[in-house]
Amino acid sequence: MSEKAQEQADKIAALFKGRRTLDKLLNIEFISIGVGTAVMRMKLTEDMVNVYGSAHGGAVFALADAVFAYACNSRNMVTVASGCTIEYLAPSFPGDILTASAEFQGGRGKQGIYDIMITNQNDQLIATFRGKSHSTKEQILGDIA
Amino acid sequence: MSEKAQEQADKIAALFKGRRTLDKLLNIEFISIGVGTAVMRMKLTEDMVNVYGSAHGGAVFALADAVFAYACNSRNMVTVASGCTIEYLAPSFPGDILTASAEFQGGRGKQGIYDIMITNQNDQLIATFRGKSHSTKEQILGDIA
Amino acid sequence: MSEKAQEQADKIAALFKGRRTLDKLLNIEFISIGVGTAVMRMKLTEDMVNVYGSAHGGAVFALADAVFAYACNSRNMVTVASGCTIEYLAPSFPGDILTASAEFQGGRGKQGIYDIMITNQNDQLIATFRGKSHSTKEQILGDIA
Amino acid sequence: MSEKAQEQADKIAALFKGRRTLDKLLNIEFISIGVGTAVMRMKLTEDMVNVYGSAHGGAVFALADAVFAYACNSRNMVTVASGCTIEYLAPSFPGDILTASAEFQGGRGKQGIYDIMITNQNDQLIATFRGKSHSTKEQILGDIA
Repeated sequence: MSEKAQEQADKIAALFKGRRTLDKLLNIEFISIGVGTAVMRMKLTEDMVNVYGSAHGGAVFALADAVFAYACNSRNMVTVASGCTIEYLAPSFPGDILTASAEFQGGRGKQGIYDIMITNQNDQLIATFRGKSHSTKEQILGDIA
Repeated sequence: MSEKAQEQADKIAALFKGRRTLDKLLNIEFISIGVGTAVMRMKLTEDMVNVYGSAHGGAVFALADAVFAYACNSRNMVTVASGCTIEYLAPSFPGDILTASAEFQGGRGKQGIYDIMITNQNDQLIATFRGKSHSTKEQILGDIA
Repeated sequence: MSEKAQEQADKIAALFKGRRTLDKLLNIEFISIGVGTAVMRMKLTEDMVNVYGSAHGGAVFALADAVFAYACNSRNMVTVASGCTIEYLAPSFPGDILTASAEFQGGRGKQGIYDIMITNQNDQLIATFRGKSHSTKEQILGDIA
Repeated sequence: MSEKAQEQADKIAALFKGRRTLDKLLNIEFISIGVGTAVMRMKLTEDMVNVYGSAHGGAVFALADAVFAYACNSRNMVTVASGCTIEYLAPSFPGDILTASAEFQGGRGKQGIYDIMITNQNDQLIATFRGKSHSTKEQILGDIA
């Protein structure tokens, strides 16, 4: 059962990776997916900074949002974000490698809460992100699964 | 006095526009700046979507964060984001033109609150964003201003 | 039509005021209601402080949450909060009189966004609160309305 | 060293418990404190409900905010909340016993992030709360410690 759920999550990740998204533009790299979890990685480039030369909030957010999408869709229900909060704890700079890990915290009806921790190559916490998800009744894999 | 503050904000915007940032990668277009306010625009492309083909949360956030940066730096103090919240109210799609308007709400010491409303080409509210800023004691323009 | 909507909001407020709630325990005073808006007031007492003698975050939040409830129920649909954010901009103390004003910002399906500004007796902004509401399909007044 | 830090946290909790606060009005019960952590409990009463008879958002928030205060002050620096977010995952009712557990997540300079989970007597997750703290340079216990 749990094995089947993991297989299903793997299939969803494979499907998602084939799509043209902002993840691709930012070279966000898929690392792993589980049931309600996911991990992704991004190398900060000179194109992803803000006016002061450190990581643009939008770049860090995009990484967190990408891993949130994989985690909240891992149970084969089409799910979208309804809102997110991000707190920045340390700056990052071009060359830094950021890793974002998402974990399901709990839910109510169609609503779920996911926490995403973003760390750099030195395991320093860069930012915390909390995403609220909203599930539809539609399946991602359908009968193919 | 107010005229001088506007002039200063214009100079800061001119300086910021010259820098290589994520704003450039996403073709975010500067529209206007005021004292504590700013407006920017972005055309959603096929490269800015999520796995379902609608606007990636990271793209909408990046636009809001960009306009937030201009607004919170408009008073010539080096200022960064400490945290942000975003709520999505309607989806957007490639071809849509999003406009983000930032307005200062209030502050306490070095901390400021800015509200950013993101609308599409039909003036429909797409997302609301609230940014908390943190000012340093450093000036942006320095003695040049 | 708009007059009828206002009448309906007034009826709902009258109904709500008769109920035993935390609002009563904290002596939160109803000021006004409109369609998607509400205003309420609270005098901070010695019983509402934190360990440092200034307003307990829970007291300021309760006032904001109370006015949010009136505003988001003003259209005669049973509506509850799904989540809220609060940012504190200035401390308050026993004897201070806090006023909270709620305003509807926008919505999507059953979801709504309300902004609440909390000011003190000197019109100083004390805190900003953003509430996300979730409507059910049930009416408050039903056929009585 | 760690033992000394725990002793210090215990002293701070003892000091805080003696003070007249909103915690007292709501009968919030202290359970435990650690370095960067705390646990507290509250029995929901008929006085703590909203207009629909379930737990008032302000009551749940007050419990979370109370435990946040103990946790973020446990290192003997006077620390206050700068902002908080709460997400509601399940309703609670009079008679329910809510437990809130706070844990330090990370920090930057004077800023800290604390996550508080609120569960009911059946270990069901009721709400998630994230608090951002701001430390002053003042000590709580001073030379007495």
